[in-house]
Amino acid sequence: MSDLNGRLSINLATTRGSWGFAEAVDGCLRHGITSISPWRDQVAAIGLKEAARIVETNGLHLTGYCRGGMFPAVDAAGLQANIDDNKRAIDEAVALGADCLVLVVGGLPGSSKDIVEARKMVTEGIAAILPHARDNAMPLAIEPLHPMYAADRACVNTLGQALDICVELGEGVGVAIDVYHVWWDPELESQIARAGQMGAIYAHHICDWLVPTTDLLLDRGMMGDGVIDLKHIRKMIEAAGFTGVQEVEIFSRDNWWKKDGDTVLATCVERFETVC
Amino acid sequence: MSDLNGRLSINLATTRGSWGFAEAVDGCLRHGITSISPWRDQVAAIGLKEAARIVETNGLHLTGYCRGGMFPAVDAAGLQANIDDNKRAIDEAVALGADCLVLVVGGLPGSSKDIVEARKMVTEGIAAILPHARDNAMPLAIEPLHPMYAADRACVNTLGQALDICVELGEGVGVAIDVYHVWWDPELESQIARAGQMGAIYAHHICDWLVPTTDLLLDRGMMGDGVIDLKHIRKMIEAAGFTGVQEVEIFSRDNWWKKDGDTVLATCVERFETVC
Repeated sequence: MSDLNGRLSINLATTRGSWGFAEAVDGCLRHGITSISPWRDQVAAIGLKEAARIVETNGLHLTGYCRGGMFPAVDAAGLQANIDDNKRAIDEAVALGADCLVLVVGGLPGSSKDIVEARKMVTEGIAAILPHARDNAMPLAIEPLHPMYAADRACVNTLGQALDICVELGEGVGVAIDVYHVWWDPELESQIARAGQMGAIYAHHICDWLVPTTDLLLDRGMMGDGVIDLKHIRKMIEAAGFTGVQEVEIFSRDNWWKKDGDTVLATCVERFETVC
Repeated sequence: MSDLNGRLSINLATTRGSWGFAEAVDGCLRHGITSISPWRDQVAAIGLKEAARIVETNGLHLTGYCRGGMFPAVDAAGLQANIDDNKRAIDEAVALGADCLVLVVGGLPGSSKDIVEARKMVTEGIAAILPHARDNAMPLAIEPLHPMYAADRACVNTLGQALDICVELGEGVGVAIDVYHVWWDPELESQIARAGQMGAIYAHHICDWLVPTTDLLLDRGMMGDGVIDLKHIRKMIEAAGFTGVQEVEIFSRDNWWKKDGDTVLATCVERFETVC
C-alpha cells in the first residue's frame, strides 16, 4: 500500500451513498487514508463528541469541515440566525481539530434577484463570524463555487472574487480551491498565483468534470473520467506554495454513490496515483 | 397590439419545438414581431434562397444569424475545415441581411484537456475568417457562453475574455451579450461598460435562469420565471450605448418547446412588456 499520509484526503460526501461517519472512517483506514473531511450532518448523526473521539483515537487529520456559509437571508433576523449557526460550525470544527471551516457562502435569498446585495450579505456574514474564528484559531476557507450555482448555493463564483473578499477582511480568511468550480476560469493561473502570494490557499479539492454532465449538482466525475487537467492545476497550486493534501470530493448520485464504499475508495486511490 | 418594431426579436430556437423557418416567420408576423434570428439548420431546411426571399418579402430584420464558431479541432485540417465552414456561414448571413453572425466558439476538441490551447485555436479561427467578414461587411459577434459549457460548446466564458479577443483582433469583431451566460459575473457591470466604450455590443439576448435548472442545455426559462434581473441588465446595456433590439432565445425541451408556437410568442410579448 502506498503511503498516502499527507497526500490524499477523502471528503466524506464521496462515500455518502453507502457510509456514515464511523463506517467512512473505518473504510478510509482500510485503504491507508488518514485524512478526511466530514460534513456537519454526518457528525451530527453520530454526535460531535463521539466523532471527535473517533478522530482522536485514530489520529485522523481533518483537511476541512463542511460546511459553514449560506449567509444571505431575506431579512436581518435571518442573516443573524445564519451568523449564529456559522459560529456553531466553527465550534464544531475546533472540537474536531479541522484545518479549516469550508464556507459555501449562499445564493440569492427568497425571491431576490439582487446578486450584488447577496454578495454584500456574504461579506457582512463572514466579517461577523471572523472574530470568533480568530479567537479559536479556526481558518475560514471561502470556496468559490461554479457560476452555475450562483442562484442557489454560492454567489461567490470565481477565485478572484473570493480573494477580493479575503483582502477586504484580512487575516484568517482564505480559499478552498476545488478544481470542479474553477477549472474553466481564464484567470485561473494568475489567481492561483495571487492566492499563493497571499498565503490564502487553505484547501485543494479534486474530482472531474464529465461530458456530458447530466445533473448540475450530483454528477461530478471521478478523477480521470472527465476533462479537467488535474496534474496541470496541481502544479499551479504547488507552484503557489500549497503542498498540502488533495481532498477528493465527489457528488455522484447515479454512479459513485451507488457503488460500495470500498470500490469508491480503491478507485480514488488508484486515480490519485495515476492522473492527479 | 403594441409596437414591437426595433424592440423585440425572436431567436427561432425559441419556437423550434413547433415551427420551422417559414411557420416561425408567419407566427412572428401574427404577433407583430418583425425581427428574428434564425439558425443555419432552419435556413438549410427551406433553402437559403427561399429564406432570403421570405425575409425580403416581409421586410424582416435579422438581429443575428446563428451560428458560426466551433473552431477547435484535433488537427490543422480540422481547424481549416471549421474555418471554411464559418466562411460559408458568413455568406449565408450576408444573403439574409443579418446584423451579425453569432459565434459560439467551441470547446475542447477530441479528448483534449488543454483549454488554453483550445482558446488559442478560437482566436486563430476568428482571425482567419475576419478578412472575409470585413470584405462582406458582416460583423462577427462572439457570444461568451456560461462556464458550464466550457468543455463542450464554448471556451470563451466571460464577457471580459471575449472583449480581450476583440481588442486583439480589431474592427469587425464584437460580442453578443446573452443574460443567461453572463448574469452571474462579478465583473458584469464594468465589462458591459467596457464593451460599450469599444462599440462592441452587437446583440442582446434574453431569457431567464431557472431554479432549479434541470438540464444544462435545454432548460432555459421564460423571462420572469427565473432569477435574472433583466431590467437591471438592460439598463446597463443601454447605458453602455446599445439601444438595439432585445432578442429572446429560449432552449426549453420539456416546457416551451412542448407548447404551440403562438402560446410561446404571446408569452414572450407579454413578458417582454412587463419584466424586461
